[in-house]
Amino acid sequence: MEYDGAAYAGWQRQSNGLAVQEVLEGALARLLGAPTPVTGASRTDAGVHALGQVAHFDTEASIPPAKYALALNTMLPADVRVAASCEAAPDFHARFSTTGKRYTYLICNGTHAPALMRNFAAFVPVRLDADAMASAAALFTGTHDFRCAMAAGNQSKTTVRTIYSFTAARTGDWIELDVSGNGFLYNMVRIMAGTLIRVGLGKLDKAQIARAMELGDRTLLGYTAPPQGLVLREVFY
Amino acid sequence: MEYDGAAYAGWQRQSNGLAVQEVLEGALARLLGAPTPVTGASRTDAGVHALGQVAHFDTEASIPPAKYALALNTMLPADVRVAASCEAAPDFHARFSTTGKRYTYLICNGTHAPALMRNFAAFVPVRLDADAMASAAALFTGTHDFRCAMAAGNQSKTTVRTIYSFTAARTGDWIELDVSGNGFLYNMVRIMAGTLIRVGLGKLDKAQIARAMELGDRTLLGYTAPPQGLVLREVFY
Repeated sequence: MEYDGAAYAGWQRQSNGLAVQEVLEGALARLLGAPTPVTGASRTDAGVHALGQVAHFDTEASIPPAKYALALNTMLPADVRVAASCEAAPDFHARFSTTGKRYTYLICNGTHAPALMRNFAAFVPVRLDADAMASAAALFTGTHDFRCAMAAGNQSKTTVRTIYSFTAARTGDWIELDVSGNGFLYNMVRIMAGTLIRVGLGKLDKAQIARAMELGDRTLLGYTAPPQGLVLREVFY
Repeated sequence: MEYDGAAYAGWQRQSNGLAVQEVLEGALARLLGAPTPVTGASRTDAGVHALGQVAHFDTEASIPPAKYALALNTMLPADVRVAASCEAAPDFHARFSTTGKRYTYLICNGTHAPALMRNFAAFVPVRLDADAMASAAALFTGTHDFRCAMAAGNQSKTTVRTIYSFTAARTGDWIELDVSGNGFLYNMVRIMAGTLIRVGLGKLDKAQIARAMELGDRTLLGYTAPPQGLVLREVFY
């Protein structure tokens, strides 16, 4: 699935706003004539986008599995699209079967906020050192206890995660962070993005990040970067 | 200037909706305390975007010219930004001093409409032959009478224009057209884009385009492609 998160209170159904899950369940209920709960791979935050969300549901309806994408797209709003649909193995679970996820985080580093990409990038008007950011991003790769990069409200049993790769690259006024790992704690990608922005500004260095990771101290890292720069790109199974 | 055209009735002030010109003039009036008419280089249509619009105004205010960008951006909505401002020569005219313009036109050629880029691309679900489109685009380059690629309402004295370059290139599910020329008739870029889409679908060939240009017959070309794929990228002086 793809969605533009700007208008939504995140993936997960909740009381304080419209969630993407709710919109999808609404379309499915109209299509199937029965309430059909949906489970997503990633519970993306309000304002966060997806180009590769995966969700599953159980049904005994006789619609050919591949047809759901087209049928749902006729009922969904234009900012939520189903890219493809298929039948999964009986034991498949969109969230628990994942082996990892990939996210990108886009930063506009020009002199003015971007008019066209305003909902798809964080804006930092001060010139960032992208090489320093790339070098610091490498610190996060590997298997570590990431409790320093976790927001209150995290519900995971363990705070150990493995980051497969984490790059930062500049193209003109744009810097894109690209991170893949076996899993991410609550707000972890946005905290790492905010930390790399602080590094790019010269306000945080690699020794300080290493120390934060060693001590598990959230206060030593950067701010939680805003949601609109974040895109869930891919879920691995 | 940059603007996301989705919310606007085009560049030029008009009675049937809010125009970008009107928004800019409103911000300038608040800044300068006096009505200050603005002239833009290109009168982009409703829904068309800009990353390189240029506009001028006359003032005797003592604000340093380079400061207007920052000052206006504090007053403009987030979908309209002034990238830079400077003092121009007394005889400079944003529209009449141009030597050309560059536009891009983005087409999403995947299996489903794009959720994130829905306001920035035309969607064509049938696979397009981008090589055939590139080959046909070359037909438009050079100096020709383009009355075949002009919508009713065109107000230009002559319909002869020179296209400096016109390319079409595929990157995955996306095809970008990129055209530069000394000037464009009303709807000309969108008519050429719609024509190339018809070529990509195999429904129009180069001989038919050559004949349309020879006869000046609008009905022989393709449809006017939708506005949201079009971006004014640059104005040449």
